Amino acid sequence: MISKGQIKQVKALHLKKFRDEQGLFIAEGVKIVSEIIHSHPSMIEHLFATDQFIKANASVVGKSEKAVCVNEAELERISTLQTPNQVLAVCKKFPKNNPSIDISKQFSLYLDDIRDPGNLGTILRIADWFGIREIFVSEQSTDLYNPKTIQSAMGAFLRVKVHYMNLDRVVTDSNVPVYGAVLNGENIYKQKLQNGLIIIGNEANGITEENLKRISHPITIPASSANQTESLNAAMATSIICSEFFRQIKL
Amino acid sequence: MISKGQIKQVKALHLKKFRDEQGLFIAEGVKIVSEIIHSHPSMIEHLFATDQFIKANASVVGKSEKAVCVNEAELERISTLQTPNQVLAVCKKFPKNNPSIDISKQFSLYLDDIRDPGNLGTILRIADWFGIREIFVSEQSTDLYNPKTIQSAMGAFLRVKVHYMNLDRVVTDSNVPVYGAVLNGENIYKQKLQNGLIIIGNEANGITEENLKRISHPITIPASSANQTESLNAAMATSIICSEFFRQIKL
Repeated sequence: MISKGQIKQVKALHLKKFRDEQGLFIAEGVKIVSEIIHSHPSMIEHLFATDQFIKANASVVGKSEKAVCVNEAELERISTLQTPNQVLAVCKKFPKNNPSIDISKQFSLYLDDIRDPGNLGTILRIADWFGIREIFVSEQSTDLYNPKTIQSAMGAFLRVKVHYMNLDRVVTDSNVPVYGAVLNGENIYKQKLQNGLIIIGNEANGITEENLKRISHPITIPASSANQTESLNAAMATSIICSEFFRQIKL
Repeated sequence: MISKGQIKQVKALHLKKFRDEQGLFIAEGVKIVSEIIHSHPSMIEHLFATDQFIKANASVVGKSEKAVCVNEAELERISTLQTPNQVLAVCKKFPKNNPSIDISKQFSLYLDDIRDPGNLGTILRIADWFGIREIFVSEQSTDLYNPKTIQSAMGAFLRVKVHYMNLDRVVTDSNVPVYGAVLNGENIYKQKLQNGLIIIGNEANGITEENLKRISHPITIPASSANQTESLNAAMATSIICSEFFRQIKL
C-alpha cells in the first residue's frame, strides 16, 4: 500500500524541476526495472510493484525494505505511462563524472540541442549498439531523466554515459576531426571516416550557428535523386551515420 | 463553421473500420496538407482549416467548395493530434493497384507484421530517402491510413506506394534474393548485397516462422562486442539496412 506522501513524491518526479532538486528519476516496466535490479541495484531508492512482479522477483525484491506492494489503480496514479506495466522504480541519478573517453581514439556523438526525449532515448540505443560508451549533449537539450527518454532508451541509459557540455569544452584539441551532419556536406560513403566527434543537429533547425563553425568535416547522407523528403529525422540519421563509421573504422 | 454531421463523419475516420468503409482518411497540419494540396489536390475530399491557413493559401483554397473555415475549438474536436495545427484534410485513399516494380531489378522492403503506426511512417520516410518507390506489407500489419502513420510519414506516403500482400504473392520467382534481418545472419557489411526483397520483422517477435523459410540470405547488423542491447528497433534497423544496400548498389 502506497501512502499519500509517496504518491505526491513520485508524481513530482514527472517534472524536471523536482528531478533536479531531488536527484531522482523514474524508470518503469518489467524489462527496464528488472535490468536495473540486476545490474545497478544500488540505484534504486524505492520500488512500487504489483504482487505479480514481487512474486516473480522474490529472490531479489522479496525482503527489500525499498519495495512497496501496489495494486493496479495505485500504480496508475503514479505512472507516467498510458499502460503501466507492473512496476515503477524511483532511482538515484548517476553521479556527474568528467568524460573518460578520448575522442581522438574513438568516434562519439555530440547532440546539438536535441529536443525530443524519444529521439535522445533512441540515439542512446544506437550508441550502445555500436559500442559508443559516452556521448555529449548540449546544455539546452532534452533531459536524460525525462521518463520518455528512459523508456525509449531501454537498458541503454545504464551503459552509455551522457555528458551535458558545451562543444568548446568537449573539443579542446583542434586536431580532432569534428564531423557535422549538414545538407551540403561530403558524401558520407565516399570519404575515409576517422575517429572524432560527430555533431547531430536539432530536429527542426539542424546544428546551431555557433557549432557549425567548429565543423572540420561536413558530411551528408546522400539521398536517391528521386527523393523529395527534406531530411531524415535525427534518430534515423544517427543510425545511418554510426553504422557507416562503425563499418569503416571498427570492422 | 462545421456542422454536427461533419464532426461525426471526421471523428469516425479516427477508426480503421470507418476508414475502410468510406475509403477516406485524415491528414493534418500545415506541412503535410500543403503538400497534398500542391501535389495531389484531387485526393482532398474536405478541408477544415482555420482562417489563418485559408488566408495563407488563398490562391488554391480560397474559392474551393471543399474548404470549411473552422475555429480552434472546432478543429480540436475533430483532430487526432494533441496540438492541432491549423488544418485537417479528409482525403480519398489511393486506388488499389498491382505492384509495378520488379524486385529483381531494385531492392525493396517487405514488412512482416509491423504493428506500430509510427514505425511504418518512419520506414516510409527511409524508403523515400533511398529511392524505394514501392514497399510490401503483410496483411496483418498496421494500417497505412492510421493518422499516426500519416503524421510520422510526412509527405513520404504520397510518394512511396504500399502494397498489402502475403509474401508468396510478392516473391513468385525463386531466383530473386530474399534477405531477412535476423539475429544470426551474415554480417551485412561483409557480403555483396544484390537487388532483391528485404524482410523486416515484427517489433517484438521478428519475422514470422512461415516467412523465415523463404529467406535465401539471412543478414545481421553486427553489434559492437560491448553491446548488450538485444535488438535495434524496426525503424533503426531498416535505416541501417537500406543505407548499406544503397551504398553498395546505387552509389
